[in-house]
Amino acid sequence: MKHFADKLIEAVKKKGNPICVGLDPRLAQIPDSIKQLALKGDNSPTEAAAIAILEFNKGIIDAVADIVPVVKPQIAFYEIFGAEGIRAYVETLKYAKSKGLLTIADAKRNDIGSTAAAYAQAFLGEVAIFEGEDEVVMPIFDADSITLNAYLGWDGIKPFVEECAKYDKGVFVLAKTSNKSSGDIQDLEMKDGKPLYEIMGHLIESWGADEVGESGYSFVGAVVGATYPEQAKKLRKLMPKSIFLVPGYGAQGGGAADVAPCFNEDGLGAIVNNSRGIIFAYEKMDFDPNAYGEAARAAVLEMKNDLASVIPT
Amino acid sequence: MKHFADKLIEAVKKKGNPICVGLDPRLAQIPDSIKQLALKGDNSPTEAAAIAILEFNKGIIDAVADIVPVVKPQIAFYEIFGAEGIRAYVETLKYAKSKGLLTIADAKRNDIGSTAAAYAQAFLGEVAIFEGEDEVVMPIFDADSITLNAYLGWDGIKPFVEECAKYDKGVFVLAKTSNKSSGDIQDLEMKDGKPLYEIMGHLIESWGADEVGESGYSFVGAVVGATYPEQAKKLRKLMPKSIFLVPGYGAQGGGAADVAPCFNEDGLGAIVNNSRGIIFAYEKMDFDPNAYGEAARAAVLEMKNDLASVIPT
Repeated sequence: MKHFADKLIEAVKKKGNPICVGLDPRLAQIPDSIKQLALKGDNSPTEAAAIAILEFNKGIIDAVADIVPVVKPQIAFYEIFGAEGIRAYVETLKYAKSKGLLTIADAKRNDIGSTAAAYAQAFLGEVAIFEGEDEVVMPIFDADSITLNAYLGWDGIKPFVEECAKYDKGVFVLAKTSNKSSGDIQDLEMKDGKPLYEIMGHLIESWGADEVGESGYSFVGAVVGATYPEQAKKLRKLMPKSIFLVPGYGAQGGGAADVAPCFNEDGLGAIVNNSRGIIFAYEKMDFDPNAYGEAARAAVLEMKNDLASVIPT
Repeated sequence: MKHFADKLIEAVKKKGNPICVGLDPRLAQIPDSIKQLALKGDNSPTEAAAIAILEFNKGIIDAVADIVPVVKPQIAFYEIFGAEGIRAYVETLKYAKSKGLLTIADAKRNDIGSTAAAYAQAFLGEVAIFEGEDEVVMPIFDADSITLNAYLGWDGIKPFVEECAKYDKGVFVLAKTSNKSSGDIQDLEMKDGKPLYEIMGHLIESWGADEVGESGYSFVGAVVGATYPEQAKKLRKLMPKSIFLVPGYGAQGGGAADVAPCFNEDGLGAIVNNSRGIIFAYEKMDFDPNAYGEAARAAVLEMKNDLASVIPT
C-alpha cells in the first residue's frame, strides 16, 4: 500500500501529464449506436440508460487509460438514473481501476460526523454488513478519492481523513469552485480582510498537515477552479502541500494560462480536469460518433501539449 | 397542485405537530427478526441489507403516518449499500408518499449549475431518458423536497428552485448546522461583524422571496440546528418567510427549549427532526424489538407533548 498523494504524483510523472478525464456521460451526447444496443431486449429505460453510460465509459477508459493518470466520474450523471445509474457508477470505478487508473468520486459529500462516517466507509473504505456469523465486510464504491464540501467544518471531514489513513485514499475539499457565482459565499470578505476561500484554504492545508507522503504532498487536497487564476495563485502559496484538483478547463472557459498558477515550482501539485472537452470531443473534432474513443484520445494529447507550455519543468 | 410550503404547513396543522421522522436505518440497530428474514434465500449481502432497511422503514411509516406530517430519509444510510441501497431509498420515498406523508431527501447536494440541474431533475422533477421515439420522461426519486449546501452560491441552487416552481417541491439550504464543529466555517466573522451563517440566512431568505405561498412561507427553507438556540433566534428574525428544518433534537442533545426559537409567533415556520430517538425508541423505551413501530409511535407522542410546551399557540 502506498500513500494516495504518492500514487497520484507517481501516476502523473509516469503518464507525463496531470490530466483528469471527467466521466460525465450525459446520455443525449452518447453515440446512437450505443444507445440502440442498450435499448434492445426488455431493459427498463433506466436499465438501458445505465447500460449505455457504462458502455460509453468503457470506450473512453480503453482509449485513454495508458495516457492519463486519473478519471473523475461525476455521480450526478449516474444518480439521475436511480439505482441502475449507481450500479453503472460502481462498475465504472471498478473498470477504471482494472485498467490501472486512479479514480476520484466527484460526489461533494458533506454531513455531520456520524453520517459522514457512513459516506466515508461507502466511498473510500469498507462497510460491515450484518453482525456475528452473518457479518460481511466489503468495499462498496472503492474509489481512490472523493470530493468533499466543508461547510459543516472539521467533524464532517474527519471520518473521511480517517478512512484515507486506513486505506491509503484521498479527499479533495472545495476551496474556490469554478462556477460563475462561486464568489457569492467563497469571496465574502472576512473580519481580517481575507476572502472566505483563503480561510478555507488554510483549514484544508492544516487538515492535511500530518498526512504528508514521501512526495511532500498530503492526501487532503483542494478543489480550485481554473476560472479564477488570481485566486488560485494566492491559494497555491498558502497551501504548498495540498494537491489541487482543478476543474473549469475547456468547456467552462479556463485555458492553459489560467491553470498555470495551480502548479508548484516543481511542476506538480495539480491535476487538471476536463470532462466534456474530452469525452465528447468527437462532436467538436468532427469524428464519426463511433470513433468517440479515438477523438477522446486525440483531445487528451492536444490538452497535454497545451498544458506542457505552462507547467514548470 | 399546491405550493410546497402550503402543503407542509397544512400537514403540520392537520397532524397537530411539526415532527419530522428521520429515517436513518442503521442496520446494526434494526431488529434481528427483520435481518434474519432478509438473509433468507440467495440475496447478496447488500440486497439483504436493502431488503431489511426497507422493511424496517415500512414498519416505522405504518406506525407514524397518521400522526406526523413529514419524514426525512438520510441518503448516506442507503448509499452505504450501493445500488441496492439506493433502490431501498427510492422505495422508502414512494412508500411514505403512498401513506400520505411529505418527504425530505436529506442529500445535501451541491455542485455547479449544469450538474446541479441533473440532481434537481433526479430528486425533485422528471428525467428525460433517450430521445425521439425512444424518449421516456419519468420521475426518479420524486421526493417532495431536498436538503442543499450553498457553498457554491446561487447558480448551484437555482436549478433546484426552478424544479420546485415547476413541480411544487421545496428545498432546505444549510444555514447553521447542528454539529459540534459547525462554527469552524459558519461562525466566521465577516467584515461587517456578522457571522457567515447570518449572511447565508439572508441569501436563503432572498432566494425564496419570490416563491412565497398562501401560507406566507416560501419553498426555499433553511436547515437550522436545535443545538444552537441563540443563533436560531437571530436567524428566525432575519428570515420570517423561510421554513426551518431543525435537526439536533434528541440524540444530538437539543431539547424543546432549544427548539423554541425556531418557531415564528404564529407557532409555525419550523419542522423538528428526530431520527434515532424515534426509529430506535424500542431500545431506550425497553420495548420488544419486534414492537419497534409501537415504540416509535410512543416516542412521537412523547415528543409532541414535549414540543407543545414551547410552541407559541
